[in-house]
Amino acid sequence: MNFPSKLVEDAVGEFTKLPGIGKKTALRLVLHLLNKPVDETQKFSDTVAKMRTDIKFCQTCHNISDHDICSICSNPLRDHSVLCIVESLREVMAIENTQQYHGLFHVLGGVISPIDGVGPEQLNIESLLTRLKSGTITEVIMAISPTMEGDTTIFYLSNKIHQMPQAKIKITSIARGVAFGNELEYVDELTLARSIATRMPYENYMVGR
Amino acid sequence: MNFPSKLVEDAVGEFTKLPGIGKKTALRLVLHLLNKPVDETQKFSDTVAKMRTDIKFCQTCHNISDHDICSICSNPLRDHSVLCIVESLREVMAIENTQQYHGLFHVLGGVISPIDGVGPEQLNIESLLTRLKSGTITEVIMAISPTMEGDTTIFYLSNKIHQMPQAKIKITSIARGVAFGNELEYVDELTLARSIATRMPYENYMVGR
Repeated sequence: MNFPSKLVEDAVGEFTKLPGIGKKTALRLVLHLLNKPVDETQKFSDTVAKMRTDIKFCQTCHNISDHDICSICSNPLRDHSVLCIVESLREVMAIENTQQYHGLFHVLGGVISPIDGVGPEQLNIESLLTRLKSGTITEVIMAISPTMEGDTTIFYLSNKIHQMPQAKIKITSIARGVAFGNELEYVDELTLARSIATRMPYENYMVGR
Repeated sequence: MNFPSKLVEDAVGEFTKLPGIGKKTALRLVLHLLNKPVDETQKFSDTVAKMRTDIKFCQTCHNISDHDICSICSNPLRDHSVLCIVESLREVMAIENTQQYHGLFHVLGGVISPIDGVGPEQLNIESLLTRLKSGTITEVIMAISPTMEGDTTIFYLSNKIHQMPQAKIKITSIARGVAFGNELEYVDELTLARSIATRMPYENYMVGR
């Protein structure tokens, strides 16, 4: 693609660095900005830059926050004995939006993935173990994607937690199975086979309905 | 969607103003930026802001340019007697990429669309007529999308050009018909009917093959 302007080419280049945005989409975004008044683009770029520079991460759970301690960790009404381990802010938001969970979170910042050069040292695991050592947490919920990397991470964390002196921490995982609304015939075999092997009492089925 | 941070919420809001980007995509882009070093976001926002403030529009054809006159208008090797009228920079780039057109362009900046409040006054039509009055242009090619608004614009422009004292300007339109690679059975009826009505000599079919 030949660009009539170096400025447009540079801006398109920056947009294509974002995930899921190719050259054509990037060009569409740039042309959209060019059709709008200058101050709109200024506001866009200022807001994005400010967000990145001013953002804070909760010192306890590594969730994104406007303060040193996030609103979830500092909320005395939440259950401080249950800790939900998630990959990123996205899962925190998804779980919070269900309004069914009232415990705390711990954001790992990713999953163990040797192929991407992500080992346990790159994740917020040290601080997780420190939190668990304090003794107030009695249950850890693994809310991590059921991918190979996710399963590796769960396995690694479970081992670490079992090795701890306070070995009374219960480790659970979010339920795996056929999603509500899914047609049985289109569910993949692994999920279907596992959902029969790990079938649950009918009372559990009605929870939250 | 509840955001844990006002900064994130604002940035997501700015991204969703871009075309084709919803809340979920915007959040993904913001989280991507948060996972990268601060200076990358700074570079992103600086490049986009600089593009918008420093960009120039060619004073002749309204194409985007780094200078007062764009590289197409200032190129003496191009055919200055043929003028291709397009909606936006996107079409200029698409036509330029074919490397088959060697005339000049005129960017309208949109099409006449009363429903969107775009009348002829909002488009670069006055400057087009001034260019045509100079007398060097002998052919005008309408390369405008075959939508209702596009057809209205072509009709309006043709009328204006016919009313001019130098009525020797030839008006043509890019060929409409079945695209190469399209299966006939999936082509819409209007295109197919028109492509039979406006069938062309076999020699034309081989042009550019």
